[in-house]
Amino acid sequence: MRNGKNPHSQKPAQVRTVNFRENVKSPAQAETDRLDILINKATGLAPGKASVATSPYTASRQNLRIIPMGGIEEVGENMTVLEYGDDLIVIDMGLAFPDDTMPGIDYIIPDTKWLEENRRRIRGVIITHGHLDHIGAVPYILPKLGDPPVYTMPLTAGFIKKRLEEFGLLGRSRINILNKDDAIALGNFKIRFFRINHSIPDSVGLCITTPVGQIVYVTDWKFDHTPADGKPTEFDKIAKFGAEGVLLLMSDSTNSIKPGYCISEREIGLTIDRTFSDIKGRIIFANFSTNIARIQQVFDAAAKYNRKVIVTGRSLVNNIEIALSLGYLKIQPKVIIKSEQAKKFPDNQIVILTTGSQGEEAAGLARIARGDHKTVKIKKGDTAIISASPIPGNERAIAVVMSNLTRLGAHVIYNKVLDIHTSGHAHQEELKLMIALVKPKFFMPIHGEHHMIVTHADLAKGMGIPENRIFALDNGQILEMNSAREAKVVEDPKVSSGYVFIDGLGIGDVGEVVIRDRQVMAKDGMFVVIMTLDRRSGRLVNQPDIISRGFIYMKGNDDLIREVKHEVRKLVESKGKEKLEPNWVYLRNIVRDEIGEYLYQKTERRPMILPVVIEV
Amino acid sequence: MRNGKNPHSQKPAQVRTVNFRENVKSPAQAETDRLDILINKATGLAPGKASVATSPYTASRQNLRIIPMGGIEEVGENMTVLEYGDDLIVIDMGLAFPDDTMPGIDYIIPDTKWLEENRRRIRGVIITHGHLDHIGAVPYILPKLGDPPVYTMPLTAGFIKKRLEEFGLLGRSRINILNKDDAIALGNFKIRFFRINHSIPDSVGLCITTPVGQIVYVTDWKFDHTPADGKPTEFDKIAKFGAEGVLLLMSDSTNSIKPGYCISEREIGLTIDRTFSDIKGRIIFANFSTNIARIQQVFDAAAKYNRKVIVTGRSLVNNIEIALSLGYLKIQPKVIIKSEQAKKFPDNQIVILTTGSQGEEAAGLARIARGDHKTVKIKKGDTAIISASPIPGNERAIAVVMSNLTRLGAHVIYNKVLDIHTSGHAHQEELKLMIALVKPKFFMPIHGEHHMIVTHADLAKGMGIPENRIFALDNGQILEMNSAREAKVVEDPKVSSGYVFIDGLGIGDVGEVVIRDRQVMAKDGMFVVIMTLDRRSGRLVNQPDIISRGFIYMKGNDDLIREVKHEVRKLVESKGKEKLEPNWVYLRNIVRDEIGEYLYQKTERRPMILPVVIEV
Repeated sequence: MRNGKNPHSQKPAQVRTVNFRENVKSPAQAETDRLDILINKATGLAPGKASVATSPYTASRQNLRIIPMGGIEEVGENMTVLEYGDDLIVIDMGLAFPDDTMPGIDYIIPDTKWLEENRRRIRGVIITHGHLDHIGAVPYILPKLGDPPVYTMPLTAGFIKKRLEEFGLLGRSRINILNKDDAIALGNFKIRFFRINHSIPDSVGLCITTPVGQIVYVTDWKFDHTPADGKPTEFDKIAKFGAEGVLLLMSDSTNSIKPGYCISEREIGLTIDRTFSDIKGRIIFANFSTNIARIQQVFDAAAKYNRKVIVTGRSLVNNIEIALSLGYLKIQPKVIIKSEQAKKFPDNQIVILTTGSQGEEAAGLARIARGDHKTVKIKKGDTAIISASPIPGNERAIAVVMSNLTRLGAHVIYNKVLDIHTSGHAHQEELKLMIALVKPKFFMPIHGEHHMIVTHADLAKGMGIPENRIFALDNGQILEMNSAREAKVVEDPKVSSGYVFIDGLGIGDVGEVVIRDRQVMAKDGMFVVIMTLDRRSGRLVNQPDIISRGFIYMKGNDDLIREVKHEVRKLVESKGKEKLEPNWVYLRNIVRDEIGEYLYQKTERRPMILPVVIEV
Repeated sequence: MRNGKNPHSQKPAQVRTVNFRENVKSPAQAETDRLDILINKATGLAPGKASVATSPYTASRQNLRIIPMGGIEEVGENMTVLEYGDDLIVIDMGLAFPDDTMPGIDYIIPDTKWLEENRRRIRGVIITHGHLDHIGAVPYILPKLGDPPVYTMPLTAGFIKKRLEEFGLLGRSRINILNKDDAIALGNFKIRFFRINHSIPDSVGLCITTPVGQIVYVTDWKFDHTPADGKPTEFDKIAKFGAEGVLLLMSDSTNSIKPGYCISEREIGLTIDRTFSDIKGRIIFANFSTNIARIQQVFDAAAKYNRKVIVTGRSLVNNIEIALSLGYLKIQPKVIIKSEQAKKFPDNQIVILTTGSQGEEAAGLARIARGDHKTVKIKKGDTAIISASPIPGNERAIAVVMSNLTRLGAHVIYNKVLDIHTSGHAHQEELKLMIALVKPKFFMPIHGEHHMIVTHADLAKGMGIPENRIFALDNGQILEMNSAREAKVVEDPKVSSGYVFIDGLGIGDVGEVVIRDRQVMAKDGMFVVIMTLDRRSGRLVNQPDIISRGFIYMKGNDDLIREVKHEVRKLVESKGKEKLEPNWVYLRNIVRDEIGEYLYQKTERRPMILPVVIEV
């Protein structure tokens, strides 16, 4: 126990690596289920509506706090903090992609202001796997936290290092590479790992032993009895943790609405094999650049059917290099060729492996489909295989890519037509099996939009976990558990939560005001009215100037512009002299309102009106 | 035959209504299949790549031309023109909804410039059914064509009249209500109808007899042996047309990528019944306001389980009124109640029927989910049923609505969880059966994005229709057939095609330039630089003024703004005097380029730079 220690001490995190077999006992074992909890049973609150302490909040250092920084109201920006005593540990640092209400934004990362203020208490960062929604924010956040040590598996470490290198941050970071059978102690927390299946190798679940009980944390997982790499989930470990006693299970809700089980990677491999054996022309194969299993399947099928593979796309090239160097990918010699060598081979001996399975505008597949890829031109007889499910919001972009490909003469195969892809996230029967194995006292669904999380909560309820032991939290809510194994949801205004927008070089300099302005201008454009006034008389020196963009085609609307200028002139003449105050606030407000209304009457559009007064 | 007639004659369209049993003979019958066609067999062109005549085009008045105005590159804005001799007929006048590359646009309609120029040749407009993507553009286009007569079935007529009434256009239009067993003659065209199934009653397919052969035109259809209204497809008529000989089949491609068959409406009805019998609290049921069958199922289940129905949403109220008055909907007395009466009934006796199944921001369900609906507030125990499939692009909006509903405590049931909705569009096995019944010589897939159309073409090819008899056209291409039953794809530069944007009151005044400006401002905002210069000396009279929105939060970036002003001052001093030409074009260009580059260096954003020179 390290309670009472100066939270600002710079003492390095207490870390030791212990073998998995060393039994990490916890005081929480076995008896958790018969203990009462604090939250109000009488209210019969639904999951997601757990009672919230409203009195001024003082955190008890004797309590364990689960602090979600992101990932429970959205798919993406996954990050969770655990606090006990003086110690904090961080799990994952992901980014999210913007939706169409956030124009111009590149990425979203969690708001870590509170964590930065408490950075001296951070004992370590654990990364579960190498997807961007779990590692993408590392270069943005890690330096702001004083570069605490990172603990993760080899492939994930490879991906993180590559990303840090791109940001010029590799030198200062401390990435500790673990084995899945290691156990580590970070202050009050002891962490053991177990392999789960996902769409990237080296994905692990965590069993975290804390002074108040054990937590099983599984994000981005599925069960696959026949995975592509032959390494199934470590059911034995999960069952062992369940037998030891688990206070809280935190588990992935992405596919909680989907019945049954994921299709096994083996099935997908067989489909890819069959497809490669059938196709006569070139194959253009698009998938996620991190899906090493799928990439392996493509190389295997290519080798079997005597095809050469051209790899195009920076992230794909990088990830293949990393996976090859670490032994996660095995490619037969001479299967990969350069694009210049392609012409030496007939079409039925060529595979082009590319990115862009989500229809991303700048990625390989979209460029190929638009006909502006520098080396790949579609021709009749080509078959494009899109091996991915659309992330919600990307459906239109994928459809556009498919239409463009077919227009150029390619045949397109994708998920809805053939089982050419399987999800990396557990379906309902798998989610239930996880709950059955872990047998937690409390359950907190994570990783997903709120409706997915609630559906996951319903599954747990259906299995007999009482409703008041299930916590469907929002960002900003904290789950607190004490040594009596009681749990409650609290809010701590000191703990920041929310989105930080990344736009170009700016991190957090685009806030709600800027986004709202972008939305307004996107909808109806903008309309600048420039009035050049004599400083003393308040009279117009020139004709008012109008600059408008995105509102109406100016050349065809001379009459409207002339009328607006006339209206402005009238307003200046009648109002300009009324209040000769600094900055002409009154006149500008009048012009904004009146011209705004005038334009709405004429067009039913509401461009952003920007009145400008130039004094001369 | 009316060839050679003055196309500008105002002679009213030659229309007569004949009984279906009157045999409308065509010269095309029976022998179509053994005739050759014009398009080049040697090229072996794929569907969608049919050879296009490139020589200066002169339409032969002896040829039949199929002119798609919209609906073959997108889902929506369905409209097709048929031309023979002096006669034109129009099928459908639909609108499309914008995608996220068209910010601020309300609707899209086809470009009808060519048709307007040829309006005196229009013999009539046939509307196949009452969905907005088939009737939505009627109020925009019909007046511009001189209000030609419209022919359609009773419910469709009811929906069109309501729409025209809302636009104040009802008085001048001529809507002719037909019976599905009628046949009409419009100039050179004779049209017979057959009932097909779809998600709105009174949907019909067309058999159009022309001087060169018969055309079967089926848009928005499926086969349902047990539809909700008990009125299945008229297979007998379709088979009869097939036996008579069909030159061309034009058929719906929306679900061409989906294997198997649509689930029958009867199955959906049973699921709704079962759901209503299970749910204990209030039911909030969202569906398309035109889906009269689903509305009937809701009222039936409500009556059976002793629930009252509150209808909320203007379009839903309108459509229910129309369907009731025309006998397409049968509601037991006292099932509908007003929202004020709701409190008299316990929750398990209430159904709230609403719009917004696509997550539309302004519709009932989204308002209920946001908690700002004027009469409906969600409470724990409510169940929201979303009875619709997402139209591609709406997935995110629907997910947001679902998350908001669950956050308020509602349980949500939708399509992926339970078969609570079935599509109105034929799946692959149905599409194949249609081709088998019609046995066309030529095939033209319509209604869908290009990749759907190509998949439909592939199905036809798989059934043995030669590739060079299948025409997967783009908007702007025309299919021409002659009396020798030969077909070719031509392009006629006189025939307009493309999108017309509707934005507020403006029809077509928002073009590509305006859209592009909106996109730029949505991405990185805008940055106005105002330079007030002395007319003679070209020197700055004032400090430059900067107005920026959507680019960066101005208050936190005083330094950047100060530096920009300094840069502008330097540019004016060095360049302003160089070229004292009218409008200061040179100076403005320099400022645009230099300041744009400067801001990009500092921020990696490219706001729209608007340099303004004020001369005093």
